[in-house]
Amino acid sequence: MKASEIAQLIGGQLEGGADPELSDLAPLDRAGPQQIAFLADHKYLQYLETAQAGAVLIAESLAMRGSTTLPRIVVKDVHRAVALLLQRFHPEKVQPPGIHHTAVLGRGVALGADVHIGPYAVLGEGVRVGARSFIGAQTVVGDDVVIGEDVTVHGSVTLYRRVQIGDRSIVHSGVRLGSDGYGYTQEGGAHRKVPQSGSCIIGKDVEIGANTTIDRGSVGNTEIGDGVKIDNLVHIGHNVRIGPHSLIIAQVGISGSATLGSRVTVAGQVGIVGHVQVVDNVVVAGGTAVWASILEPGVYSGRPARPHKEELKRQAAVGRMPKLMERLKRLEQIVMGRKDEGE
Amino acid sequence: MKASEIAQLIGGQLEGGADPELSDLAPLDRAGPQQIAFLADHKYLQYLETAQAGAVLIAESLAMRGSTTLPRIVVKDVHRAVALLLQRFHPEKVQPPGIHHTAVLGRGVALGADVHIGPYAVLGEGVRVGARSFIGAQTVVGDDVVIGEDVTVHGSVTLYRRVQIGDRSIVHSGVRLGSDGYGYTQEGGAHRKVPQSGSCIIGKDVEIGANTTIDRGSVGNTEIGDGVKIDNLVHIGHNVRIGPHSLIIAQVGISGSATLGSRVTVAGQVGIVGHVQVVDNVVVAGGTAVWASILEPGVYSGRPARPHKEELKRQAAVGRMPKLMERLKRLEQIVMGRKDEGE
Amino acid sequence: MKASEIAQLIGGQLEGGADPELSDLAPLDRAGPQQIAFLADHKYLQYLETAQAGAVLIAESLAMRGSTTLPRIVVKDVHRAVALLLQRFHPEKVQPPGIHHTAVLGRGVALGADVHIGPYAVLGEGVRVGARSFIGAQTVVGDDVVIGEDVTVHGSVTLYRRVQIGDRSIVHSGVRLGSDGYGYTQEGGAHRKVPQSGSCIIGKDVEIGANTTIDRGSVGNTEIGDGVKIDNLVHIGHNVRIGPHSLIIAQVGISGSATLGSRVTVAGQVGIVGHVQVVDNVVVAGGTAVWASILEPGVYSGRPARPHKEELKRQAAVGRMPKLMERLKRLEQIVMGRKDEGE
Repeated sequence: MKASEIAQLIGGQLEGGADPELSDLAPLDRAGPQQIAFLADHKYLQYLETAQAGAVLIAESLAMRGSTTLPRIVVKDVHRAVALLLQRFHPEKVQPPGIHHTAVLGRGVALGADVHIGPYAVLGEGVRVGARSFIGAQTVVGDDVVIGEDVTVHGSVTLYRRVQIGDRSIVHSGVRLGSDGYGYTQEGGAHRKVPQSGSCIIGKDVEIGANTTIDRGSVGNTEIGDGVKIDNLVHIGHNVRIGPHSLIIAQVGISGSATLGSRVTVAGQVGIVGHVQVVDNVVVAGGTAVWASILEPGVYSGRPARPHKEELKRQAAVGRMPKLMERLKRLEQIVMGRKDEGE
Repeated sequence: MKASEIAQLIGGQLEGGADPELSDLAPLDRAGPQQIAFLADHKYLQYLETAQAGAVLIAESLAMRGSTTLPRIVVKDVHRAVALLLQRFHPEKVQPPGIHHTAVLGRGVALGADVHIGPYAVLGEGVRVGARSFIGAQTVVGDDVVIGEDVTVHGSVTLYRRVQIGDRSIVHSGVRLGSDGYGYTQEGGAHRKVPQSGSCIIGKDVEIGANTTIDRGSVGNTEIGDGVKIDNLVHIGHNVRIGPHSLIIAQVGISGSATLGSRVTVAGQVGIVGHVQVVDNVVVAGGTAVWASILEPGVYSGRPARPHKEELKRQAAVGRMPKLMERLKRLEQIVMGRKDEGE
Repeated sequence: MKASEIAQLIGGQLEGGADPELSDLAPLDRAGPQQIAFLADHKYLQYLETAQAGAVLIAESLAMRGSTTLPRIVVKDVHRAVALLLQRFHPEKVQPPGIHHTAVLGRGVALGADVHIGPYAVLGEGVRVGARSFIGAQTVVGDDVVIGEDVTVHGSVTLYRRVQIGDRSIVHSGVRLGSDGYGYTQEGGAHRKVPQSGSCIIGKDVEIGANTTIDRGSVGNTEIGDGVKIDNLVHIGHNVRIGPHSLIIAQVGISGSATLGSRVTVAGQVGIVGHVQVVDNVVVAGGTAVWASILEPGVYSGRPARPHKEELKRQAAVGRMPKLMERLKRLEQIVMGRKDEGE
């Protein structure tokens, strides 16, 4: 593919004179002359000068800051351009529809057109799968589960009974949806299990990363809104509700009955306690401990969570402590004539 | 089911005059006229006035604080009442006993009466399964594993060789019991694996949440006491011992050879380093970092863990820093006549 | 096995007169007269006096500090001696080579000599497995995966398409290698998936713990160097590179495009943000939040990460706050004559 064809495909501007033939994308620091590299983040500017790529895809905002003699294609949104090029260079291998002869289907299973069911998949009674959906090898689908159209459930996933997944959602290997929530009552010093009788409802266009777990509701459902993207190894407790288009990064834990609004971003390893509310458009920085509701949009960080600016001030204040100690000592020496204040 | 019948079933007091017919339980903010809602936590009092439920199950302690014209059933322990009602409205579908024809059983497997073995389950040599136990689809049971009576091992679980599980325990999908612990010795700059030859012994009435991992012992066993309840995505290292009736919430990590007493509560995302001891009746708040033994009962929090009151004081002290800076500046101005102390 | 034979096997010095017959290893506080216990860590010195073991394996460095009348074998490196003894007392049961008749093999699969493929394993098209490698029950291997020689992939693992695993590596149950990284672009308020077209390349002599996830690269690969040891429930994002012989302890999260050098140690529950660099020989303490590159070797801790000594000073400074408040009050009283400074 010529650089000029690429520029046309992604709506970019080819600069630098040459028009090389390119066969793949590669990172800036590892691309060779047959590859087009890309520069989307100023952190990688350092690699530009020594890059060996055949051409560079570069963000408008960075085009002025870096200097290179390589042919370059300038675009507004590099990430979008990269996505388009990857689809072109690495088209996904389509699994042909069909039901593998080793799949076990329970009574009353209803499958839409062109469904793919992989080897050793097990579908319980009354399961419904929409047209063109994919169920990978070894995946176990409980009774009365409902899967929409164009859904991808990779291999080795567990969907407990009555789980629902909306159209076009993607569920990665090792995900457990609808497992029992953590609920016990105390009886004579022992813990007695509270039945977990609700379900787990996943919206449309959701993606759920590998080995993430989302518990079913105890009374009522756990609900994940349309367009929510969840990373790997996330824990979402029973009766949690997450609004549309929110982002939940890896290893986040959200305890039972917490409610998140729409377009909330929760960065990696955040913990959110149970029964709190986080309103729309909140951003929670990585590692934050959310111990109370967040009722105003904005960026939050810290343990416990505070508005990010406040947390930065606290951090700075602690950093000033040694200097402050010195100033205090000096004052004491002046006022009290001491030279040696033992602490 | 009439409200009056429900009141009788759960030992509660029906108030408010009416006696509606109710067909299900639902959360307070989403219940309709055919449903009974419940109010166990004062945080939800706000929803009481506008509730559309047919009746409300309400804790004695909250009955005076909320006002509603709905029929209500007042009970001491709402959670216990909810558990009873869920069992009534949503009785669990019992899987009939039997061994699926696709299950693979090794030599010398011994199965008790009325055992259920799901599709594609694989049992190694010498495995013993007690009466009425359930092994889900795709679960892999290693050689010489011993499973007690009335145990539920959901689908897609791995039990490595020689693991033992006590009566009535529940193991959720994706759990790995008896995987190798993390142990290496240094040899010439490389890490040489230490054999992990012990086992992993799970007591009676234990529940283990989805995708949790518990490593086998290196020398000697990892031991989980009776009645312990473990949430999702927890990591328990080799040779850890946890005493009876302890609670381990989601995403906790407990490193090798740590010993926890009985009735210990470890809240979400806590990390406990190796080789420490935590005595009976300790509560560790969410996100705490336990870097040393905890030898007195009580509540602990912070990074590193301290008695919770102490940690609160530290947090408060940091919060007072800006004011303290101002006071120090004022003093300096008075004492030294300075107006402008650069920091 | 006589104590004297053990001493000879492990290159240790038998002391204490007797030469008992010993049949197993056990921890110091639980060993009986037929067992040899071991003492490698001074924390366990307290158990020495009351130990019931038949003999004690003891580190040279501790031999002087504990007193016991039990026969003892003194060695330089107890951990190495324990490893040797475990291999002797608990030789690993070797799974005979062979392909289980239920395994599903795609077109063009190439298997080396003496490979073991377990029940219900599924190998996609073009998979290559080197000699003497082991693939456990239920493991799903995607198209074009390449597995080296003497590799152990335990049961219920997922290897997505094109993943590569080097010789002698060990992959535990529930591991997901090559799942899609977390990458989206914003389009009109919704998140559009960026194709994840790279792969995931695992070096030689790597071990990966249960339920860990390592995403494939988006453009280019995720790369784990030779001899790296990864614990359970770790998340490694797309395009991460980890240098040889690094150690990654349980529940660590490493975000996309971070680069770690060789012989880096990352302790439990650490979070490392994306696009940063951590140089060779860095040690990151448990629970640390790495928000920026670490460019000097050393020990780091804190949230955010700082040189460990600096972090300890910060912690100490906060601890001195109450005393500091008192000193400030006293000064104020002297200077301003106040008795009562409200805070």
